[in-house]
Amino acid sequence: MRVCIVGCGAIGSLFAAHLAQVDGVEVWAYDVVEAQVEAINRSGLRLTGHADLHARVRATTDPASIPECEFGIVATKSMYTEAAIAAVAPVFADGAVASVQNGIGNEEVIAAHVPRVIRGTTFPAGHVVEPGVVNMDTGGDTWLGPFEPCPASMQEVTRLAEAITAGGMSCKALADARGAQWTKLIFNAATNPVGALTGLTHGRVCEQPALRALVSQLVAEGVAVADALGITLDSDPDALVDHGAKVAYEHRASMLQDVLARRPTEVDAMNGGIARFGAEHGVRTPMNLAIVGLIKGVERSWQQPG
Amino acid sequence: MRVCIVGCGAIGSLFAAHLAQVDGVEVWAYDVVEAQVEAINRSGLRLTGHADLHARVRATTDPASIPECEFGIVATKSMYTEAAIAAVAPVFADGAVASVQNGIGNEEVIAAHVPRVIRGTTFPAGHVVEPGVVNMDTGGDTWLGPFEPCPASMQEVTRLAEAITAGGMSCKALADARGAQWTKLIFNAATNPVGALTGLTHGRVCEQPALRALVSQLVAEGVAVADALGITLDSDPDALVDHGAKVAYEHRASMLQDVLARRPTEVDAMNGGIARFGAEHGVRTPMNLAIVGLIKGVERSWQQPG
Repeated sequence: MRVCIVGCGAIGSLFAAHLAQVDGVEVWAYDVVEAQVEAINRSGLRLTGHADLHARVRATTDPASIPECEFGIVATKSMYTEAAIAAVAPVFADGAVASVQNGIGNEEVIAAHVPRVIRGTTFPAGHVVEPGVVNMDTGGDTWLGPFEPCPASMQEVTRLAEAITAGGMSCKALADARGAQWTKLIFNAATNPVGALTGLTHGRVCEQPALRALVSQLVAEGVAVADALGITLDSDPDALVDHGAKVAYEHRASMLQDVLARRPTEVDAMNGGIARFGAEHGVRTPMNLAIVGLIKGVERSWQQPG
Repeated sequence: MRVCIVGCGAIGSLFAAHLAQVDGVEVWAYDVVEAQVEAINRSGLRLTGHADLHARVRATTDPASIPECEFGIVATKSMYTEAAIAAVAPVFADGAVASVQNGIGNEEVIAAHVPRVIRGTTFPAGHVVEPGVVNMDTGGDTWLGPFEPCPASMQEVTRLAEAITAGGMSCKALADARGAQWTKLIFNAATNPVGALTGLTHGRVCEQPALRALVSQLVAEGVAVADALGITLDSDPDALVDHGAKVAYEHRASMLQDVLARRPTEVDAMNGGIARFGAEHGVRTPMNLAIVGLIKGVERSWQQPG
């Protein structure tokens, strides 16, 4: 089995390094960050923290150098999905490509470029320590399922899920992965921007009653949109928030990390995605729209003189 | 006429320096910041920017050294009202004390300590350049009126307003100053925290459609609370927002200045005040409550390790 990881940053590296542990799986990684690609080719890909792995991965910035692959796993930030999959699409001329990205709407973008698509959601988190070295901050499950408009077969979904699991990351193949995806989407959209706007770790957000109430309001809007879409959530996102406060008290949300580093955030694919689907289905999402406005305002401030 | 300014920071200094221009008005200033008090006593109080004044003001950190005053003008940040007026109350044993502070609820605090109270609102803004030097950033009107539960007489209100106007700051005496106060309160509560959370100047907040919409939602909640209180606003706060985008495009809201300097903000007296009066009168204010939560979260983050 040949798999190409599209976007080999923190999340992509988790999949690349785990899959590379499996006999018979050949892992390629496409990324535009030359320092990351060079480090992986020079010294291999190393995971620390929640995992301790050293993997052989073939990395490249040149899509033409990648042989045809049966599977792709897109792990870029959501605003780079279009550019990345457009560049690397020939690799998947007869492939099935999964998204394990944050937010909603990535599969739709991927589907415009490849024949079969897998809807995916992953809970593990990590951060790049230095080129070629990624710390796995937390573990957790990954869920894959056929993307309804142009689905991969369940056989394909199952093969990919089993390979990921064999590599050491728990991955489940589902006929309908929307519940898992929206559960994580709602959780992320309710917690990430609140951490990003305040600077607080997840546990401290939950300790402030007014902030915890805001998180619940954001969750409630997301749940109302999922209901309107006919999606049955995997679990109560509000309960995940409280669980997170126990197991990830000191965790700084990825959007907070983005803001601290002055990188564009994924708010358009998170709260913006909930608001877009809500608008299409007649569900009001004023709090999510306010959050989009505030986070985009923060991004705008980086271009402000003085 | 002897007037004591309680809290001689940016706003207090504007009143102190202008009143000191008037023949027959003796101005005292009480403040706890020794550097400011010493500079004023050593070199006088200087205004730059929108005003160019040099004033003789008697400043002190010791309330016992201040002779009895007919009038007081409280200009501390709202969270320091109680401590300041409690310390200096004997000065106003038979005096009338005005608040020109941000937010709502300051007059109630002052009324617990002095016999007669004046409800006040002021639009001019400024910032301390160095001890003894304040830049007047913008001009504008001040409105004074009897505070209903323990009012100063209209004669007193008018005398103070006329003295301030004679000094060069336009000040109006009103039988009911609530409309002016709530107009500014709603304007401030809708714009200050949005600037503080995003880092954007007032004009840039207004250029971002999603942020401008959030400002309007905050205004609408405030107007609904004012309606429930039977208050007729002076003008449409939403129109003031657009006006401000023209005349104060580069203005950084005072709450943004507070956040950048890691000083406690006045959000409890602004959005928190609107939410409190709303709750007492059955008006929902979810967006103002969310803003309180976010700003208090930012303040909390300054104590966060790492």
